[in-house]
Amino acid sequence: MRATLIYGAGDVRVGEVPDPVLRQPTDAVVRVLRACICGSDLWPYGAKPVTPAGDRIGHEFLGVVEEVGSEVSGLRRGDVVVAPFLWSDGTCDFCREGLHTSCRHGGSWGRDGVDGGQGEAVRVPQAQGTLVKLPVGEDSALLASLLTLSDVLPTGHHCAKTAGVNPRTTVTVIGDGAVGLSAVLAAKRLGAERIILMGRHKDRTDLGREFGATEVVAERGAEGVERVRELTGGDGTHTVLECVGLEQALHTALGVVRSGGTISRVGVPQYPTVPLAFPEFLRNITLTGGVAPARAYIEELLPDILDGTITPGLVFDRTVALDEVPDGYRAMAEREALKVMIEP
Amino acid sequence: MRATLIYGAGDVRVGEVPDPVLRQPTDAVVRVLRACICGSDLWPYGAKPVTPAGDRIGHEFLGVVEEVGSEVSGLRRGDVVVAPFLWSDGTCDFCREGLHTSCRHGGSWGRDGVDGGQGEAVRVPQAQGTLVKLPVGEDSALLASLLTLSDVLPTGHHCAKTAGVNPRTTVTVIGDGAVGLSAVLAAKRLGAERIILMGRHKDRTDLGREFGATEVVAERGAEGVERVRELTGGDGTHTVLECVGLEQALHTALGVVRSGGTISRVGVPQYPTVPLAFPEFLRNITLTGGVAPARAYIEELLPDILDGTITPGLVFDRTVALDEVPDGYRAMAEREALKVMIEP
Repeated sequence: MRATLIYGAGDVRVGEVPDPVLRQPTDAVVRVLRACICGSDLWPYGAKPVTPAGDRIGHEFLGVVEEVGSEVSGLRRGDVVVAPFLWSDGTCDFCREGLHTSCRHGGSWGRDGVDGGQGEAVRVPQAQGTLVKLPVGEDSALLASLLTLSDVLPTGHHCAKTAGVNPRTTVTVIGDGAVGLSAVLAAKRLGAERIILMGRHKDRTDLGREFGATEVVAERGAEGVERVRELTGGDGTHTVLECVGLEQALHTALGVVRSGGTISRVGVPQYPTVPLAFPEFLRNITLTGGVAPARAYIEELLPDILDGTITPGLVFDRTVALDEVPDGYRAMAEREALKVMIEP
Repeated sequence: MRATLIYGAGDVRVGEVPDPVLRQPTDAVVRVLRACICGSDLWPYGAKPVTPAGDRIGHEFLGVVEEVGSEVSGLRRGDVVVAPFLWSDGTCDFCREGLHTSCRHGGSWGRDGVDGGQGEAVRVPQAQGTLVKLPVGEDSALLASLLTLSDVLPTGHHCAKTAGVNPRTTVTVIGDGAVGLSAVLAAKRLGAERIILMGRHKDRTDLGREFGATEVVAERGAEGVERVRELTGGDGTHTVLECVGLEQALHTALGVVRSGGTISRVGVPQYPTVPLAFPEFLRNITLTGGVAPARAYIEELLPDILDGTITPGLVFDRTVALDEVPDGYRAMAEREALKVMIEP
């Protein structure tokens, strides 16, 4: 079959790889209907050292079950399923607590002999714990929104949930990427009535308004902090959803969080330390968030997509065929596309 | 009247100061029955620059109301009252949310013309919001335990509460000072069944066991982390109550917290940054806590002292008269005394 490989910074190609087969009785093989490129794929795309053999890449996909191992129950050939961005057994203590990202028998796509998601098919380890059956057909109009269940929607939801967003909390969302916009959607879904979106790409912040943002702040750094404080009587907001991961975004978060408030971060941190010292201690600031246990949230979020309450698939503003994946990376890296969907 | 003044590192004296009088209609004057020395008083005692005029000090006291301003209701001459370690109006939005430490009209004892607590009497600003009436007489046998309501008990409670301690969470408490021991008591009170106390002073950890610690780890640093991990199947505990404030204690906290877990800190941080980077992000570690809004918790904790369910006053292992306060500081600084009570 054909799949995406990354050979180093800026060097993504689609090539021939072995067809996936069942290796463990807990495996399934899934033919990919839709996959996508993640903002976090741009980190290796920007900085990966040259890798002559190429590494498999991609961790967001939905597809059709082709084969299941003898120990997999509840799934069968023909089921449409979505996979979260990490695979997990669903039975260990961490999974039972809803922290599937720390599963004792789980792992990452595209590593240690496991397929990446940006290809024609995927061998899914721990298939019963990992995959969620979707009550739709292969040609459903909801596939784009359902695909967001693999990562970007649960990540936004994790951010809002761990921050403690509710109808009584004001919210600042930092970042107008697909995760930031999903965090807006998630905050709105949890009842937030005031959501300030910090972002400077008008087409993206317009989508943010559609998702529930009540105000947009285009300024960045100290000026952006000043603007959010002006909007909130000098106090900042109860919750801050940090969806970027850069140090400047973290400093902005610390600048706009209200005393007693919570910063939740879901952008992969590109900094070694956090300046949470005496002033933040006096202000009772909480820092939370982390890599989202997407699997824990899928059943909760799914009904709202099925009944049309939310349309998170609007974050996809470009669809490419498998051959065009390299151009999809380029387009996302150059901020030409917000989020690229792949139709293999 | 006589009160404690600090003139620089290691230089605490008791001297004559003006008698407190009502200055605002929201003031009260309280004659001090009991005060005490806080672990945080040891920071200026260790490092304060020479201050020839002397600064008032002390922020934990209970006493008898002598006089109330015209706008103070619910309190009258003769009432026994306790004061939290910051004064607050009780009516602003932060106070209503339970974050009295960020009160819009509150402040600190011993600063800006406000008396310190380690003296014969105190002018209490915002008396109605600040003071809590205690249903006991001046000679109550419960005064020591009731005095802990001013700081050390609510601080331990804040630590346990913000960490999310409940019957299903395992707990590590770092530090066997009066705050650490109070955090053990608070964790036990919130239902924790397994409480590992990290401390190396046997007399203190023995009191910790009496307060509810189920295990004691005397080792520090990497060895201490290793020991807690051994005790918890390699995982660490769901919650970590950091009651020291030194950087090594913070590193220990990061080492013993379970994935998905929470570190709450109430020790005043003596470090500029916190190493919450990619590994902690992957593990979904939360950092919370801060300066405790003691006032918010007094009504909740008081009944357990009155009915004898808890005896937090056991943290006082020495009582001094006002004249002996300088020796009390010395004894605490030299770890000769755990916590010193003052009977003016």
